[in-house]
Amino acid sequence: MPLKGKQGVQPVAERRLIYGVNPVLEALRARPDEIERVQIAEGALSGVPGSEIRERARSAGIAVDRVPKESLSASARGGVHQGVVAQLREFQYATLEEVISAAETSGRPLAALALDGIHDPQNLGAIVRSAHALGAHGVIIPKDRSAQVTPAVAKAAAGATEHCKIARVVNLSRALEDLKQAGAWVIAAVSAGGESLPQADLRGPLTVVIGGEASGIREGVLKHCDLRLAIPMSGKIGSLNASVAAGIILYEIARQRQHGGSV
Amino acid sequence: MPLKGKQGVQPVAERRLIYGVNPVLEALRARPDEIERVQIAEGALSGVPGSEIRERARSAGIAVDRVPKESLSASARGGVHQGVVAQLREFQYATLEEVISAAETSGRPLAALALDGIHDPQNLGAIVRSAHALGAHGVIIPKDRSAQVTPAVAKAAAGATEHCKIARVVNLSRALEDLKQAGAWVIAAVSAGGESLPQADLRGPLTVVIGGEASGIREGVLKHCDLRLAIPMSGKIGSLNASVAAGIILYEIARQRQHGGSV
Repeated sequence: MPLKGKQGVQPVAERRLIYGVNPVLEALRARPDEIERVQIAEGALSGVPGSEIRERARSAGIAVDRVPKESLSASARGGVHQGVVAQLREFQYATLEEVISAAETSGRPLAALALDGIHDPQNLGAIVRSAHALGAHGVIIPKDRSAQVTPAVAKAAAGATEHCKIARVVNLSRALEDLKQAGAWVIAAVSAGGESLPQADLRGPLTVVIGGEASGIREGVLKHCDLRLAIPMSGKIGSLNASVAAGIILYEIARQRQHGGSV
Repeated sequence: MPLKGKQGVQPVAERRLIYGVNPVLEALRARPDEIERVQIAEGALSGVPGSEIRERARSAGIAVDRVPKESLSASARGGVHQGVVAQLREFQYATLEEVISAAETSGRPLAALALDGIHDPQNLGAIVRSAHALGAHGVIIPKDRSAQVTPAVAKAAAGATEHCKIARVVNLSRALEDLKQAGAWVIAAVSAGGESLPQADLRGPLTVVIGGEASGIREGVLKHCDLRLAIPMSGKIGSLNASVAAGIILYEIARQRQHGGSV
């Protein structure tokens, strides 16, 4: 939840900052887990709010640094910091290369997911949880038009965000081409009109593209896929929740690799 | 969201009522989809709020009835109705017998889910959506300690709550015994220590019990299961989101029935 006004949250070179007495206090009260450290300007915060800031940081195990006022002003880039800045923990994304080499290290063919426009943190969390539990080497998300890894996502992932490699890429289509270069098949999960999931051979190295909740896979991304795959469905709705579809496909990949062959 | 105070929401024989000018107006503004009809006492609501109530009901296609003041007072059971009552739409649950006979009508062996303590509306919605899309005959939920079918669930189900039979039972263990009597195997989905999903034969009539997000299947319910089944998993988390697990099991049931046999 971004804090508003002149005080507030500011992205500074991949490191988010909260500055100002009340915003920092509010963040310490509401979500101490997200705070990596608190910086207080020398000589500042001698009153009651300062005591509460120090007290709450201490009890949550958050480092408190005393820094020269000038360096705080530089951090806050002219924002009204009132002598205090909190640094938010940043999730450490993997690179695409790290996902690819995780497959090499495992001795198993690459199994990765690429998410094109998953916006719901619960879905992203459930997908990362499934990817880790069902043996995928990583999850690739775009930097824009996608949920990012936040504490809500980590919670929905039951902690799997700490174990599953999550690569964040600027251009998803470009990443798919890089994966093809590395020898992987790029497979689009579609709700209809693709090869039937149990009949596709999923034993080779591959990346499955999962479309967003609202609009599925974008045309520009679909163009980069070698194959379209559909989970056989009946009924009147004709689609599954994105995290359920991802889980089913990962299960089928693992099943074929364990027990050999499609169908 | 229950409205508080003397005016408010009252369960009346399975039909929820909202009474009082402001509560009704608030409901018409915030969630007109949930309102089945509005009743206004004869001679009441001649002022501005009355006009807004009638106007909003009309534009949302909600029936407005004029009724004698006495019948409104009886409906509101002594609540301060101020001349207006809104009836909320009630979801029509199926019976366990209807789920069983849906299988008979389909000519396919029963495939049903029994949910033991799914509390998250998004999970319940996703499960109902999967059940419908993957050919299950119905979903069984307990009346207590479970999410019920609300508009949030219907939304997460992408409308599948209108097509999938959802039976609500007082006692889940009793329902499982009734299902066994009807010839179905009752299978518990567990996170570890069960038969491996791809190796179990799932072609006969069956009901799969899915445990809640927090604590899994209760011991008292587990006792009524014929078999325990686990999705093979690796990694450090060792469990899947409940709706993902349900989707994978339904997929495997459909796969075996379509393509014959386990593994």
